Amino acid sequence: MSIRIGIMGYGNLGRGVECAVHQNPDMELTAIFTRRAPSSLHPLTPNVPVYSAGDAQLHKDEVDVLILCGGSATDLPVQTPEFAQWFAVVDSFDNHAHIPEHFAAVDAACRRSGTVAVISVGWDPGLFSLARTYAASILPHGKGYTFWGKGVSQGHSDAIRRVEGVQDARQYTVPVPAAMDAVRSGSGPELTTRQKHTRECYVVLKEGADPARVEREIKEMPNYFADYDTTVHFISAEEMARNHAALPHGGSVLHSGRTGWEEEHGQVVEFSLHLDSNPEFTSSVLVAYARAAYRMKQAGEQGCRTVFDVPVSLISSKTPEELRASML
Amino acid sequence: MSIRIGIMGYGNLGRGVECAVHQNPDMELTAIFTRRAPSSLHPLTPNVPVYSAGDAQLHKDEVDVLILCGGSATDLPVQTPEFAQWFAVVDSFDNHAHIPEHFAAVDAACRRSGTVAVISVGWDPGLFSLARTYAASILPHGKGYTFWGKGVSQGHSDAIRRVEGVQDARQYTVPVPAAMDAVRSGSGPELTTRQKHTRECYVVLKEGADPARVEREIKEMPNYFADYDTTVHFISAEEMARNHAALPHGGSVLHSGRTGWEEEHGQVVEFSLHLDSNPEFTSSVLVAYARAAYRMKQAGEQGCRTVFDVPVSLISSKTPEELRASML
Repeated sequence: MSIRIGIMGYGNLGRGVECAVHQNPDMELTAIFTRRAPSSLHPLTPNVPVYSAGDAQLHKDEVDVLILCGGSATDLPVQTPEFAQWFAVVDSFDNHAHIPEHFAAVDAACRRSGTVAVISVGWDPGLFSLARTYAASILPHGKGYTFWGKGVSQGHSDAIRRVEGVQDARQYTVPVPAAMDAVRSGSGPELTTRQKHTRECYVVLKEGADPARVEREIKEMPNYFADYDTTVHFISAEEMARNHAALPHGGSVLHSGRTGWEEEHGQVVEFSLHLDSNPEFTSSVLVAYARAAYRMKQAGEQGCRTVFDVPVSLISSKTPEELRASML
Repeated sequence: MSIRIGIMGYGNLGRGVECAVHQNPDMELTAIFTRRAPSSLHPLTPNVPVYSAGDAQLHKDEVDVLILCGGSATDLPVQTPEFAQWFAVVDSFDNHAHIPEHFAAVDAACRRSGTVAVISVGWDPGLFSLARTYAASILPHGKGYTFWGKGVSQGHSDAIRRVEGVQDARQYTVPVPAAMDAVRSGSGPELTTRQKHTRECYVVLKEGADPARVEREIKEMPNYFADYDTTVHFISAEEMARNHAALPHGGSVLHSGRTGWEEEHGQVVEFSLHLDSNPEFTSSVLVAYARAAYRMKQAGEQGCRTVFDVPVSLISSKTPEELRASML
């Protein structure tokens, strides 16, 4: 029997989940929930029912695992505990500083209702967190580094769009190759924010806006740009549409440690992603962890989990025997 | 209270385990077992007792987890099931084709005695197996590749040493950069054995041996060299000692997948290791999984496990709360 997946929220991430479910023969998409008018959605999956988000509870028996595809700022802090009342849920909550309180809220909801949840699933948090933890556990005398990009940062793009005179913007975070090479060499360098990443901005101006002022306001923006070497390129709306519509991303987790009685040997662990589509990759991770949520639910588990608590055997479609014979 | 670690077998791997335990403040080395005369060993750890391997059973209450540091060819198939009678055990059994039968033997021993074991721990099998499985589970429409090196292959070095006229040899497995780049590009290439790796051999000849014959015999050796582009360098014993004493290794697991309804986006996952000391890194992985074995034993678990079954939270010295707050 297939694992019946429901999607809550049908934006980039929800559509990515739909595509990923389509690639996994042990799953089927049985419901999409939306806050928009259900009839306004045009799912890719033939005949999948679309329901109003407010009616989700009525359809809980049609879904084994509900994947929450809302945003971390305002949607998930409310939705994940709410829907954990009725469903096994998986979310991609990515506000690192607020993960402990989100975990506590979701865990409490799960314990009350006897359900299971996996939160903060994706690549960072998610696979990058796993890479950091595997490496740090194995090489305790070492130092970890995370580099992001080259890729589009939605948060930084949005920040530029709020500058007066900006019509549209796309910000790429770019890791500094020399910094990554220094880490790979095993020298364990201390790196400042500025040494690790540069920021490249592509900006479409509104008519009459002053490019010098816009550029200055971007480059001086605290937190977002002031601590980085930032480049601003002014382009036309046509060029934006033609060359900057995709959402590539990726990055690398590096851990440089030393072993031996006198710590005479350097050991470097590196985990990298090169993604043509950031939301579709995140969605693919969510769907794999939905399989784990399903299995934990079947096993009667209750409470909130993160990627740290889930063995990889639970996200694989292979049986333990198949895994040992073919992947070990 | 510290986790009390025992080491069975005090070669490169055993000494590496000793060094790794030394780096983990929640552990202490409480026993070394050897088949040699105990008094002939000179451990690095002050005052650690050295016992005869045959007496291990008598010391089972001094050890929480026994790490088996023998070879996969003849030691571990016997030792792991044997010592699982009395100890929680961890081994690095790396004969991929025989893992299912080794698992079955160890699991049966554990079930009979109520103990827990983790087998095939290291980097391949081990971390590379994890990387392959995470990536394949997340990107089911994709293809995995494993590249090894640049590093010393002990098996291939031994094979050369068996050629008549060879006094000493060191064989480096070298991944082909163009092949790795082709995979990273997302094109999903079909690669032959010859296209993925080359083999570089450094050979010290016995006096009077014919270099042309030795080179030919190496290059034509089936399984080991015949399917590869192999280079043979003849060097002096002094050069061997000076430049080829270390045991570096490493490699990369790459997985290239496609996502989207029409599979329009390429996604590449890469996991790489750059190791100055292959045995010390493997030892460090063993020690981290000894922590997991200890915790599973404390939780009353029984039976054989692999890295696929062990969530990363169990190998970390941090608490789940610390992990969520600092690593997620």
